Amino acid sequence: MTDLSAYSSKHFDRGASRLKEVTWLITSLLLFQLCPLSFSALKRSVLRFYGAKIGRNVTIKPQVKITFPWKLEIGDHVWLGEECWLFNLEKIIIASNVCVSQRAFLCTGSHNYKLPTFDLITKPITLAEGAWIGAGAWVGPGVDIGRQAVLTAGSVAANHLEPDGIYRGNPAILVRRRSN
Amino acid sequence: MTDLSAYSSKHFDRGASRLKEVTWLITSLLLFQLCPLSFSALKRSVLRFYGAKIGRNVTIKPQVKITFPWKLEIGDHVWLGEECWLFNLEKIIIASNVCVSQRAFLCTGSHNYKLPTFDLITKPITLAEGAWIGAGAWVGPGVDIGRQAVLTAGSVAANHLEPDGIYRGNPAILVRRRSN
Amino acid sequence: MTDLSAYSSKHFDRGASRLKEVTWLITSLLLFQLCPLSFSALKRSVLRFYGAKIGRNVTIKPQVKITFPWKLEIGDHVWLGEECWLFNLEKIIIASNVCVSQRAFLCTGSHNYKLPTFDLITKPITLAEGAWIGAGAWVGPGVDIGRQAVLTAGSVAANHLEPDGIYRGNPAILVRRRSN
Repeated sequence: MTDLSAYSSKHFDRGASRLKEVTWLITSLLLFQLCPLSFSALKRSVLRFYGAKIGRNVTIKPQVKITFPWKLEIGDHVWLGEECWLFNLEKIIIASNVCVSQRAFLCTGSHNYKLPTFDLITKPITLAEGAWIGAGAWVGPGVDIGRQAVLTAGSVAANHLEPDGIYRGNPAILVRRRSN
Repeated sequence: MTDLSAYSSKHFDRGASRLKEVTWLITSLLLFQLCPLSFSALKRSVLRFYGAKIGRNVTIKPQVKITFPWKLEIGDHVWLGEECWLFNLEKIIIASNVCVSQRAFLCTGSHNYKLPTFDLITKPITLAEGAWIGAGAWVGPGVDIGRQAVLTAGSVAANHLEPDGIYRGNPAILVRRRSN
Repeated sequence: MTDLSAYSSKHFDRGASRLKEVTWLITSLLLFQLCPLSFSALKRSVLRFYGAKIGRNVTIKPQVKITFPWKLEIGDHVWLGEECWLFNLEKIIIASNVCVSQRAFLCTGSHNYKLPTFDLITKPITLAEGAWIGAGAWVGPGVDIGRQAVLTAGSVAANHLEPDGIYRGNPAILVRRRSN
């Protein structure tokens, strides 16, 4: 039986001091959650200040939520849509020319439900060049999204997506190829 | 390969001046996103001021997000539930006696993923009289929801829903008739 | 045909005075929605002040939304993840050692779509000990989630989940057992 009183996240490395995390949370609230304009250039600078690697011309819409900027790498010409959430307990690495649509949720954390201690499981997520994560879609821990792959709106990807594949459903399955 | 540096939305008509849009964004933040009470009558007046056509007795719950009020038409006795999002790059037209439940997402925008330029595709959405969009459901660009049709909670409609049909799943399929 | 002008919720008991509800809405906005730190102990105290029964060591992350604290019972060592929503028009009863993940939506309300008056239907939701509601999942009115049951990310449960079952999809179906 699950016993969450026995749960411990002491082996999990948050990657920053508590002070750094708290100032980030306040910054995120004011600039990322509440500000109704995009101000992408300012957001890029702030994210870099907190340790993110961010390329050129990355668009960051209002209400984008990034959990740990110091575990984030984004290439050039990437779009992060409104209300998308990069829940990056481990690294989220986004290559160039990727679109993460509105309300999408990239989730690097899970739990080992076989253990009473419900141990935290964290794995990185990578989105390869040209990938598109549709609105309201969900990407689980450890998932690699292949080059030019598409996860359609509202779909749930717990496994890798092959390059050039278009995936739909829960669980997301390959429904066709993007090219030809 | 997708090349978002070549993307252009110059052919897209936002339908209002930048000034109008910015004042709307601030109004939306304060009255629609942050205000914890519905104040539907006030919201209706504000939406009309910004160019929406809104009928009588339209209920607009807290945290409803409307992207462009000037591309919105709503009939009488319509409910917009908490956290639903009318992402109306093109017109969203909602007939009378429609219920849009909590966290539903009406999305008029997509992209042509066959083109390297990932061109913006926008198409209107119409909800016919008596339709019901369930909680957390998603409706895609160009979709017409038929009279009295139901899209169940969490379902994803990329195609038209026939009148009187109850649709479920991702993609949403007809599972039964509403009447009988 | 649906006629929402004939709708009435006069038989629905909100369970608290309007004044109590308004002060709760303001408290919820400030402490639950806007505060970027968890402050779980303070939240537990506030919820108890508003009539909730809350056990020991309940973690309440930022942006958790609870509609009516006076219709809420939670055991010990329970986690409520960011942006989860307990829409408890009727009681939501959560046993000990339960995890409700991010963006999950427990929805006790529906409507009788067979009636022109679209009558409100409200039914309690219970989560038995050790259950896990995955990120972005949806649980409908009247659903009992069995002991140690798991509803995977993005899945939609309109019916009961058996103890120890792992359910996935929309509608959620049993895909395997949690133990062995």
